[in-house]
Parts: sequence; C-alpha cells; structure tokens
Amino acid sequence: MPSLATGTNPLVVNVSARHCHLTQAAVEALFGRGHELTVHKWLYQEGQFAAKETLTLIGPRSRVISNLRILGPCRNVNQVELAYTDGIALGFELPLRLSGDINGTLGCMLMGPAGFFEMSEGVIRALRHVHMSPEDANFYGIKAGDEMRLRIGGRCGLILDKLLARVDAAFKLEVHIDTDEGNACGLQPETPCELFK
Amino acid sequence: MPSLATGTNPLVVNVSARHCHLTQAAVEALFGRGHELTVHKWLYQEGQFAAKETLTLIGPRSRVISNLRILGPCRNVNQVELAYTDGIALGFELPLRLSGDINGTLGCMLMGPAGFFEMSEGVIRALRHVHMSPEDANFYGIKAGDEMRLRIGGRCGLILDKLLARVDAAFKLEVHIDTDEGNACGLQPETPCELFK
Repeated sequence: MPSLATGTNPLVVNVSARHCHLTQAAVEALFGRGHELTVHKWLYQEGQFAAKETLTLIGPRSRVISNLRILGPCRNVNQVELAYTDGIALGFELPLRLSGDINGTLGCMLMGPAGFFEMSEGVIRALRHVHMSPEDANFYGIKAGDEMRLRIGGRCGLILDKLLARVDAAFKLEVHIDTDEGNACGLQPETPCELFK
Repeated sequence: MPSLATGTNPLVVNVSARHCHLTQAAVEALFGRGHELTVHKWLYQEGQFAAKETLTLIGPRSRVISNLRILGPCRNVNQVELAYTDGIALGFELPLRLSGDINGTLGCMLMGPAGFFEMSEGVIRALRHVHMSPEDANFYGIKAGDEMRLRIGGRCGLILDKLLARVDAAFKLEVHIDTDEGNACGLQPETPCELFK
C-alpha cells in the first residue's frame, strides 16, 4: 500500500453532476440574442462557474433530461457530459472520451426558453481526471497525460484506476469524478481520499 | 498485485438493478388475493427469479419510481434495494445495509394494480457482496463475513473494497454490485474481473 501522499496543496475531490459546455452562439440560440451566462456558483477551478441557466436535453430516442446545468464561461465547442446512468435513461450508449475529444460521437437537441439548438455531436461520458499544477505533478512524480489512482475510503470504498492527469499552471489540485463514481462509493465531504501513481 | 485467482468455479459478476423482495401478504395486497409471483427470468442463484410483476414505489417525499422489479420467491421480510442515485432522485439518503438488516430504516408506499402496501421500514442500499460455496471460500482462503475485493478492468476500471463474503452450500460463486457500481466502471459481459482477499 502506498503511504498517504500529502503535498503542498490539499487534495480536493469533487463530483461533477451532468452538465454542458456551450459556445456563445448556442447560448444565444437557446436564451436569446446577446444573452450572456450568469454566475450561479463559482467552481473550484479559477474562473469556472455553474451558470444560473439550465436547459432541456432531448436525446436521440426522444427521451428527455431536464434542468441540465450549463458551466461557464463559454467555450468554442459544445459538449454534454453525462453519467452512464443518464445514458441508460436516454437509451443509448455514451462514448467514454477525454473532454474536448468528441469526433464521431452522437449529438442531441437542446431546448432553452428562446429556442432550440442542435448539437451534431458531443454527448459523452468524460474520462475521470485530476487537474493539477506542474508543482503538484512534480510532487506526485508524474507528467501530463499519465494515469493515476484515487483511493476513496468509507464503508463502500473503492479505488478508481486510470485517472488522467491534466497539468496546467492555472490548475488547482482537484479530482473530478462523475455521479456514478461518486454514488458507487457514497462520497461525502468527510470521506478520506488518497491520490497516488 | 495479487496473481489472477482461478478457482474451480467461474467468477460471475452481475449488476443488480433496483428491486424488491416481498412477503406473500404484500404480494396479495398489491396484486390481489391468492396471487402468486410468476417467473420472468431465472437468476444465477438456484431458485431465484425476477418476477413478471413490477410495482410503483412512492418515497417519503412523494417522489416515484415506476416499474420496480420484484424478485422471487417470496421472503418473510419486505425490502427494497436501491442505488444511491435512486435515493437522490427520491430525495432522501439511503442507509447502507446488509440485506435483511433493516431495523430503523425508512419505509415507503408500494402501489400495485390491486392496491397499496405500506412498508414501515426496509428501503436500503444493499452492501456489495459475493455469494460463494464453502469450497469457493476455501479456495480464496476466507470465511463467511470476511471482506474481499474485486478488481474490474476496462478503460474506467476500479477496485471495489469491502465486498462481503456470504458463504452457503447452496450458493454459486457470484458477485452482486448495484447499478451505480456497474455504471461507474462501465461493466460489460467481457470486462475482466478478479476477486481477491
């Protein structure tokens, strides 16, 4: 067993509920011309926020997910990140992709108060990953793109394999897992977690 | 890393979707006097089956889960086994319990075609567990009640800790995980799995 790794920066593990990233053009199609996303809650990564705006997703089999949260600020690619449980509810198999790598994936229809926006592709389950600075990468002895593991404690604990390291000077040390992963282990704020190679 | 354990019996890992176990009295309240559960599909454990009958669960906050599958044959305790994701949808926190240990848990209302049945307790998330024969327990070097681990491979693999061993001469070697656990790792029929102490 690896010993507990305690670096300069505290390890934060957050569950990402299903959400989407939108272009400004998509935001305007859904919420009206000139509309800008408004901040509902700032996220742990600098400058990132959950928007007040939510929308309705209509999947390829006409099944619906309501109140899908939009994360801001706007990006240059439209992408919906769901859990496998959501994919089963929608009736299709989600591809497991690194965020941004959406070539050849299925799309969906988005519905907002001002109109519809069709995504031709971009509905994925995001690969589990950890954000970190070069200083953190150095502490753990890894480099960008390496796979790490996360031990999550508690009465239904588990170890997540193949956690992708994403390294950038702007990143704060934070693991993102999805709701399936968070619910599989019943992750709570006080649950002990340990990141290791 | 442990070496691959290959016993006399093949290791089977199955995902248990949400379901309930009912007493004969509950079945009659829900489906009519004298009604007996009918077999939809035989399960891997001898004599156990998914019934054709399903029902509607109404949670303590009046939220609903439809098409809840009943597993047969009838037992002497009513129990509903859900995933944490279901608990979030219903709006309350599920207790993590060994199947059968339902003292002090919340109940729910069940609705069938012939009437309602109120469960005063028994809505749980079941502890992950593995069924095995004494021969299997001997192979793995464990005894009833011990905790084991299950490594699940694939692109979003993980290791489940604290898998409870349930040993009985009638049991076939089978791990039961729930849909959150199955979806966290994207378990497929061809996914390699390894059970170890």
